[in-house]
Amino acid sequence: MRAADVIIKKRDKQTLSAQEIDFFINGFTNDEIPDYQAAAFAMAVLLNGMDSRETTDLTLAMARSGQTLDLSKIVDVVVDKHSSGGVGDKTSISVIPMVAACGLPVGKMSGRGLGFSGGTLDKLESIPGYRVNLTTEEFKTQLKEKGIVLSGQSLDLAPADGKLYALRDVTGTVPSMPLIASSIMSKKIAAGATAIVLDVKVGLGAFMQTLEEGRELAALMTDIGHLAGRKTVALLSDMNQPLGSAVGNALEMVEAINALRYDAPHDYMEHILHVSAHVLTLGGRAQNLDEGRALARRSIEDGSALEKLRLLVAAQGGDVSYVDDVSKFERAKFIEEVSAPQSGFVAQVNARVVGEASVALGAGRAKKGDPIDHAVGFRILKKVGDSIQAGEALCEIHADSPAKLDEARAAILSAFQYSAEPISPLPLFYE
Amino acid sequence: MRAADVIIKKRDKQTLSAQEIDFFINGFTNDEIPDYQAAAFAMAVLLNGMDSRETTDLTLAMARSGQTLDLSKIVDVVVDKHSSGGVGDKTSISVIPMVAACGLPVGKMSGRGLGFSGGTLDKLESIPGYRVNLTTEEFKTQLKEKGIVLSGQSLDLAPADGKLYALRDVTGTVPSMPLIASSIMSKKIAAGATAIVLDVKVGLGAFMQTLEEGRELAALMTDIGHLAGRKTVALLSDMNQPLGSAVGNALEMVEAINALRYDAPHDYMEHILHVSAHVLTLGGRAQNLDEGRALARRSIEDGSALEKLRLLVAAQGGDVSYVDDVSKFERAKFIEEVSAPQSGFVAQVNARVVGEASVALGAGRAKKGDPIDHAVGFRILKKVGDSIQAGEALCEIHADSPAKLDEARAAILSAFQYSAEPISPLPLFYE
Repeated sequence: MRAADVIIKKRDKQTLSAQEIDFFINGFTNDEIPDYQAAAFAMAVLLNGMDSRETTDLTLAMARSGQTLDLSKIVDVVVDKHSSGGVGDKTSISVIPMVAACGLPVGKMSGRGLGFSGGTLDKLESIPGYRVNLTTEEFKTQLKEKGIVLSGQSLDLAPADGKLYALRDVTGTVPSMPLIASSIMSKKIAAGATAIVLDVKVGLGAFMQTLEEGRELAALMTDIGHLAGRKTVALLSDMNQPLGSAVGNALEMVEAINALRYDAPHDYMEHILHVSAHVLTLGGRAQNLDEGRALARRSIEDGSALEKLRLLVAAQGGDVSYVDDVSKFERAKFIEEVSAPQSGFVAQVNARVVGEASVALGAGRAKKGDPIDHAVGFRILKKVGDSIQAGEALCEIHADSPAKLDEARAAILSAFQYSAEPISPLPLFYE
Repeated sequence: MRAADVIIKKRDKQTLSAQEIDFFINGFTNDEIPDYQAAAFAMAVLLNGMDSRETTDLTLAMARSGQTLDLSKIVDVVVDKHSSGGVGDKTSISVIPMVAACGLPVGKMSGRGLGFSGGTLDKLESIPGYRVNLTTEEFKTQLKEKGIVLSGQSLDLAPADGKLYALRDVTGTVPSMPLIASSIMSKKIAAGATAIVLDVKVGLGAFMQTLEEGRELAALMTDIGHLAGRKTVALLSDMNQPLGSAVGNALEMVEAINALRYDAPHDYMEHILHVSAHVLTLGGRAQNLDEGRALARRSIEDGSALEKLRLLVAAQGGDVSYVDDVSKFERAKFIEEVSAPQSGFVAQVNARVVGEASVALGAGRAKKGDPIDHAVGFRILKKVGDSIQAGEALCEIHADSPAKLDEARAAILSAFQYSAEPISPLPLFYE
């Protein structure tokens, strides 16, 4: 088999066999197939597509390209929950303790933020001492003993995906459904997940801008999951406006912790109950979504979810007093309310603009490895559909200098749009 | 400007500006743009196309990527004649002396054979001593003093094309009209041609298999020529069966020389008269094709074309006695006639099969740099439309061993197809 022939077959819109895909991904992983052949291949896939079976084979080939994690001796069902990323999405920090409190052990590997989209690890590090770099052994031991882990990737999972992603980034081949879906799913499968809840974000602040694209990605990832023998469900949730109120690392930690005390914005509470219900159902702890939702709700009401979070933070070396007293979280030097310039109804809070403004404040990174400021960010006080009066508070800016404050004020004002007519709130989930 | 943005623009089916194409080709030539970006770009061009203006900009960017040749102080019109390559195509060896004999000086750079398609330089080297590696100075001096040169490429013309072609060869991006057309035309323009006759071969033994493809390539190259301010005409000629009778280096030299004595197969005589008429007309030596054809014919009848060939061979160090006595050309050890297995009419002499069988005999190379045997090859005695009797000679095999002879016999028999009904001869030119 020759690499060029595999490229030519895809160039000519033919369907690749599992053997051809394995050959190509193995060769690419071992540096036997050079970057220029992989780049031509990626462009051919982007322009000519791949069906579900080919995409599953690509996913499995990438999942097998490096080490894999086997948690099946520790837990009955290896559940994983993946969000496609957005602004103000602190879901894992609330959901993982909730489901763990319901008796479903979960060890999750999260990532860092990049661009306008935040990352769970950065948020967790707002708690002094919290370690996100557990070894594989530590990860397994903690999962076994505590039933909950929230850490960074300890193994080089799916190295072919990392290599291909770096190449796609510089060859204009990122926005391809089969390549995006296989990239996400290869890491889940390499991490040993047997039950996967996918939260596909759709809208201005998401990678998928339209519902149609989101639906296509969700369907493709669900197909891959099923073809690869994993229980998989995909939710489609709104990311036109930020999720909840807080955007920024420490601010989001506070919101995620407060949610476990039932003290968080309605949209965020609904989101974490819905996602938890799916995780509990897929993980076999609930018969159906209603039961899952009731269990999740009870874990908040009886304080067991908060207790699991305390256990998690303590297990990973974090200062538990931050969970008990969220006023301890670092606060930015300059905090200012921004008032509504007009009366009416909020028609848009552009999540992308908010996300980019928060990167400009220092809460995120423009490129990998940039330092971040945990304290800065926004609290969005009015959401789409809310009525407002001119002069009423729209949001809070948390900044570390007056100059940044000015910059952020201009940016955040441009994220809001208004209507004289009443506007319906955005749906939390599309389907 | 970023290379990835140029790739993305073409990926999204947009039209690239001249600046964007220049930026990409310059960066690629200087190794600032890596192969993997050029590979993704080539695949995007192959799948999404380029219009004539973009293709012209690509051609000019590649033509300017290295040294260029300026012959305008030596000759009034810098004519060039290019064949897209085929089996038995020894046209340049007859046509260049014919047009030079008509008073149109011509200095032509030719190439070597690769795959089933032969090359003029290999054929010329059947004459002992003939030098194909003239320096640029020798090329210019000979053109000025003798009015005729037939040599290899002395300069590194259009290095971006060479680099891109090598990459296309291993990334499945060869068969793209804009990339093929710009590759051919960039070298012609870098060599300073101001009047270009393109002979686009169409059929089984050509790169373009269908008339439609040939027409598309011809139209695109003519467009490029005109947009780049060069006089350009394109002919479409048949390459379903070999041109003339001889296939193989020395055998083809003999046929090309004999043609200048009016002693060659009818199809080959017609071909060289037609091509010469176009070159003479485009080069301003004839008012129209009829006059060009009459002049070309006279150059054979009065012996001036043969005399020009003698001058050429002598100027480039070749043994002129081979022109005067073609029996001096090296002959293969084993020469055998192959008889027709049945009576009827010849329906096909598959040029591709003949070309590949001739490579197998040693007349061509499977890869660059392979040695070749000048003596071996075929003489095709029956062409499409000819009536045959079982047992009558179909062709001659010239081989250097009995084993090769056997192999070639089986191959050449498979190239012939027969019909019980009369078959029309193939047209020489399509339009």
